[in-house]
Amino acid sequence: MAVLRPIELGLTIGRLEPGPRDAITDVRGVRVGHCTLIDPDRRLRTGVTIIQPCDDPWTERPIAACDVLNGFGKSVGLPQLAELGELETPIGLTNTLAVWTVARRLAELTARRDPRIWSVNPVVGECNDGALSDIAAFPITDSHVDAALDAASDEVAEGDVGAGAGTRAWGYKAGIGTASRVAASGAGRYVVGVLTLPNTGRREDLRIGGFPVGALMLGPPTAPEGKSGSIMMVLATDAPVDARQLRRLAKRCALGLARVGGTASHGSGDFTITFAPRREERLRDGELTPLFEAAVEATEAAIIHGLFASRDAVDREGAPVPALPAREVVARVHAARAALMGDRI
Amino acid sequence: MAVLRPIELGLTIGRLEPGPRDAITDVRGVRVGHCTLIDPDRRLRTGVTIIQPCDDPWTERPIAACDVLNGFGKSVGLPQLAELGELETPIGLTNTLAVWTVARRLAELTARRDPRIWSVNPVVGECNDGALSDIAAFPITDSHVDAALDAASDEVAEGDVGAGAGTRAWGYKAGIGTASRVAASGAGRYVVGVLTLPNTGRREDLRIGGFPVGALMLGPPTAPEGKSGSIMMVLATDAPVDARQLRRLAKRCALGLARVGGTASHGSGDFTITFAPRREERLRDGELTPLFEAAVEATEAAIIHGLFASRDAVDREGAPVPALPAREVVARVHAARAALMGDRI
Amino acid sequence: MAVLRPIELGLTIGRLEPGPRDAITDVRGVRVGHCTLIDPDRRLRTGVTIIQPCDDPWTERPIAACDVLNGFGKSVGLPQLAELGELETPIGLTNTLAVWTVARRLAELTARRDPRIWSVNPVVGECNDGALSDIAAFPITDSHVDAALDAASDEVAEGDVGAGAGTRAWGYKAGIGTASRVAASGAGRYVVGVLTLPNTGRREDLRIGGFPVGALMLGPPTAPEGKSGSIMMVLATDAPVDARQLRRLAKRCALGLARVGGTASHGSGDFTITFAPRREERLRDGELTPLFEAAVEATEAAIIHGLFASRDAVDREGAPVPALPAREVVARVHAARAALMGDRI
Amino acid sequence: MAVLRPIELGLTIGRLEPGPRDAITDVRGVRVGHCTLIDPDRRLRTGVTIIQPCDDPWTERPIAACDVLNGFGKSVGLPQLAELGELETPIGLTNTLAVWTVARRLAELTARRDPRIWSVNPVVGECNDGALSDIAAFPITDSHVDAALDAASDEVAEGDVGAGAGTRAWGYKAGIGTASRVAASGAGRYVVGVLTLPNTGRREDLRIGGFPVGALMLGPPTAPEGKSGSIMMVLATDAPVDARQLRRLAKRCALGLARVGGTASHGSGDFTITFAPRREERLRDGELTPLFEAAVEATEAAIIHGLFASRDAVDREGAPVPALPAREVVARVHAARAALMGDRI
Repeated sequence: MAVLRPIELGLTIGRLEPGPRDAITDVRGVRVGHCTLIDPDRRLRTGVTIIQPCDDPWTERPIAACDVLNGFGKSVGLPQLAELGELETPIGLTNTLAVWTVARRLAELTARRDPRIWSVNPVVGECNDGALSDIAAFPITDSHVDAALDAASDEVAEGDVGAGAGTRAWGYKAGIGTASRVAASGAGRYVVGVLTLPNTGRREDLRIGGFPVGALMLGPPTAPEGKSGSIMMVLATDAPVDARQLRRLAKRCALGLARVGGTASHGSGDFTITFAPRREERLRDGELTPLFEAAVEATEAAIIHGLFASRDAVDREGAPVPALPAREVVARVHAARAALMGDRI
Repeated sequence: MAVLRPIELGLTIGRLEPGPRDAITDVRGVRVGHCTLIDPDRRLRTGVTIIQPCDDPWTERPIAACDVLNGFGKSVGLPQLAELGELETPIGLTNTLAVWTVARRLAELTARRDPRIWSVNPVVGECNDGALSDIAAFPITDSHVDAALDAASDEVAEGDVGAGAGTRAWGYKAGIGTASRVAASGAGRYVVGVLTLPNTGRREDLRIGGFPVGALMLGPPTAPEGKSGSIMMVLATDAPVDARQLRRLAKRCALGLARVGGTASHGSGDFTITFAPRREERLRDGELTPLFEAAVEATEAAIIHGLFASRDAVDREGAPVPALPAREVVARVHAARAALMGDRI
Repeated sequence: MAVLRPIELGLTIGRLEPGPRDAITDVRGVRVGHCTLIDPDRRLRTGVTIIQPCDDPWTERPIAACDVLNGFGKSVGLPQLAELGELETPIGLTNTLAVWTVARRLAELTARRDPRIWSVNPVVGECNDGALSDIAAFPITDSHVDAALDAASDEVAEGDVGAGAGTRAWGYKAGIGTASRVAASGAGRYVVGVLTLPNTGRREDLRIGGFPVGALMLGPPTAPEGKSGSIMMVLATDAPVDARQLRRLAKRCALGLARVGGTASHGSGDFTITFAPRREERLRDGELTPLFEAAVEATEAAIIHGLFASRDAVDREGAPVPALPAREVVARVHAARAALMGDRI
Repeated sequence: MAVLRPIELGLTIGRLEPGPRDAITDVRGVRVGHCTLIDPDRRLRTGVTIIQPCDDPWTERPIAACDVLNGFGKSVGLPQLAELGELETPIGLTNTLAVWTVARRLAELTARRDPRIWSVNPVVGECNDGALSDIAAFPITDSHVDAALDAASDEVAEGDVGAGAGTRAWGYKAGIGTASRVAASGAGRYVVGVLTLPNTGRREDLRIGGFPVGALMLGPPTAPEGKSGSIMMVLATDAPVDARQLRRLAKRCALGLARVGGTASHGSGDFTITFAPRREERLRDGELTPLFEAAVEATEAAIIHGLFASRDAVDREGAPVPALPAREVVARVHAARAALMGDRI
């Protein structure tokens, strides 16, 4: 079954204009690659996703920042990223117990470029796919990292791919999603792109297109995700900003998460990593509001894209992890939109 | 016209049960007082709101924490609150240029208790009511602080009172709102109460009861609030928590703000202050999720309560600042709820 | 008695070269003014010190950052300074219970420039001079702020002046001190200037010129300062840096404090505020190390300058607060230097 | 040659009393193990050091906190440690490019205990021993981690062992050092123990026992350490404190570093990790000052112990990395002490 995006069903998310791909790769130079490991015999549904911020992060050093909404997570590389405000490697996403393997491999690949490279700060985030995958088998190896790097392209596959192979969110199978929004700020127009890996949320809190479908249409409710939640949000922009400003931008992704119904439960490690090309100029802070709005919307849209793109699965006990009934949801949202606009009153 | 709450119109916010008053004063010992200064001749719409965390914060030292979503604001007392994790005084809310007057008075009143008191850390937050009030006249004096302290009670007036006299949000007159939610956590049931002072948001982003009324029903759109936005959120709970846990709780208020459509624009100083009685025991972190959910919902509800309770006003140039058309909004939300539940499909 | 600096007694602090004045005003455009209030009849020893970062901070918006070593203090304006990375007003220093008066006055003076100014973020720090001065009398008024502003000049008086009138540190009368160091970094030479207001430290921990005079020469030991300690450190530089880099620089002032024997006791509110002119270019982070070293040394030197410049006083109970016996200390340090260099072995 | 401690040469560090071992293992239950990998043929001088906070950190969950003085470092596990305020595993120390290998192994060993363990947060710090060791060979493997764990004991070897095999500091071979101080606080007496792994500092800044031997006695000066500096500081205490209080304690370690002459250069990743047994009670913040003083002194002493315990080595180019001439230094310090006390004036 072909993956549908909400727009193909007539549903727009938010009020801002998406970029050409409605993806993080609308920021020039950004590429995304996945290596997906799905093996029912070994009860594996996991993988690696790589976000390449530019051709060569080691030499280009993209500006970067991060925000931690809920630090129950194993993300690697954030202290140095926060101190120096830059990326040195691609960003990796994977399962909770594979972050160190992925980080080590990213460091090793950089160190092999030149014997004088003694210090590398790989940045890796994670979600816990242990409910669907035998995470404690430590199945991710260097070759999966290499494959995800090799696969990087400006076409971003969504759903049950890469680190999203085994994630679930708001009671449904969920996976990698991406979106972008165009922000007119000061004299320029800039793209804000987001890629999300959600593994959080209760069904009864789910909001799609601004409508509380989880509370009113879907069912039954789900429990909070215990110790295996999380969401990773990666934001890129081509706006000329510095690391302090990028951190301000990063904090807005939490608001996009909330629009989908996120509550950042205790066990949900909710992190945002954000980057931009190194530039001489920078916007004034008073010009950032359109970028903030774009960050909120692009995050909301990326999460929903990931829900729409994921397919029915089973967890490691064989219980179903259903896909979101996207067509039914959109039909109801359309009806509710009409009612809200007064068409049926 | 009597102030209506959404529940009186049949609209519930969220899925958790409110406390008896659906107010921050459902946390035992908390009291709220306002002094409202509305004087059209002097173009004044401002005031002071006091949140008394307990009978005597100087001796009881409630546990406290804070979170800064967007630090464009003049709040007083947060560095020491963050370091020591406690309150020493009531919390004051007022207009942007009056925080220092209110802080000084709160300190002075404490210092007068005992000549050995040389150090007091008043905590004061603000919103900028300069669009509706002649803020640069510095109209707030000690007597307004004293009056708000004297007025403190467990009945919380909402809307155009105290620091909410001159605020607007999401394109409407907005003011003080409060709500509470009951959280079952571990062996106990705890109340999470929130009081909000919103001065932020664009009409087209407004969501009421989870429905995007701003985008689909209301109009016309509004501009972002420039340099005079902000929201102050004050959260209280009777759960046994320490300062680190309270800080985790504080971060969830931003998610409640987002549910109403907040985007934390550049000029919007968005702060949360949270407190709880000093206790020997404390919950395990794994028991906090219900409190987090309660914080999100109580914040959402408090903001909406403040919108419902505010009345039509004019700004300092005489232009209208309308109240939210609450009855019309609720009618449409009911229709949209029915549509979303499938009653009309 | 004329105020002596260590260099006049042959004692150099550190290994880097000072600027022409060995003062924060070696950074072009920086000026410092004091208003000193010493009135034995009213048991007052207090005042206001103003650091003017440039001609007009409201329009020039110097880049700024802060660091909190120990947040037990009432400093005003730091959350917005941290968020936006800029100053809008002069920096004020005063006693603990006067920060709000000084902040309010700085805001008012800015607001009076233009009726469209609704939002001002004054930055004020404090030390608690309650041991020497009747702090609870709230003696500081607007006129003291105005006088300190009027007095601002590039000649910095040290010792018992302004906010340093009533402070003590390491068991001695201490006060305002300032110093600067020149750092060669990348292609340029930059000045790092520091002004300190110390009110912290135990005599037995005091180190002068790197020598533990407090433990080995001076006596008797003193108790920790209870709840009335603190040190304010203000750093300026003409290096082209952004706010993130200034924050890195700010953190090094704590290391300079430690060189004099500071331990940041519980009650000592230890804050650093740092600023630089707004510039297009900025140094690479790899070029910052010389600036870090200059920050450490300038802080150490500034504190010692303040000790040397202060004179014998009495506390509010009439007990002596002696000046450091500077000549005796320097004589012994010279002897110890010689011994350490082996001249006498 | 037997390792000497300063006290054996008659030199005491600071004014507080050490614990029985003058080591981090004076905190009951703490054990330290090293695995040292020195192989001149492969140009390897590296290793792994494990700090076991208690018998079983996975079930006991010691309270924990961290402080980042300079975040240029690859430390693993700090975001979750900061959020939840607890340790789940032993703390590992190793070289910069081995942190992920060590972290992965610590996680794997925990996950193997029980198939229901899906989430583990190993905490690992690093220093860059690339100047003395072929760091890019990635020589550390699981077996080195296991060996360090197996070696854990309450007798702490110092100097060129474990992660300290290849480090240098202040122009000398430096390595693992440890110390403790006893603090009388409130009604109790508590031990503060510190273990340090220094790889930072310039010779001309070195202070031993409070005396500037680097500037006045030793030579020649050294350059700053470029991108391969750092210091890891691990603090343990048996005082009843919570995570917020432990974070306050952690910040004081930077002051101890400064007492030895540290300036936290750009490339020096300076991190403190601190832990304490989980307790019901906790000290009041006003009782923490003696613990703060103990943290400063124990850090200073630990660093010096590591310098005294390290032996002559060569870097990977064959150039000498001399040991500190400890006997000569102590002799001069004794002479300088005498001079400072006036014995020779």
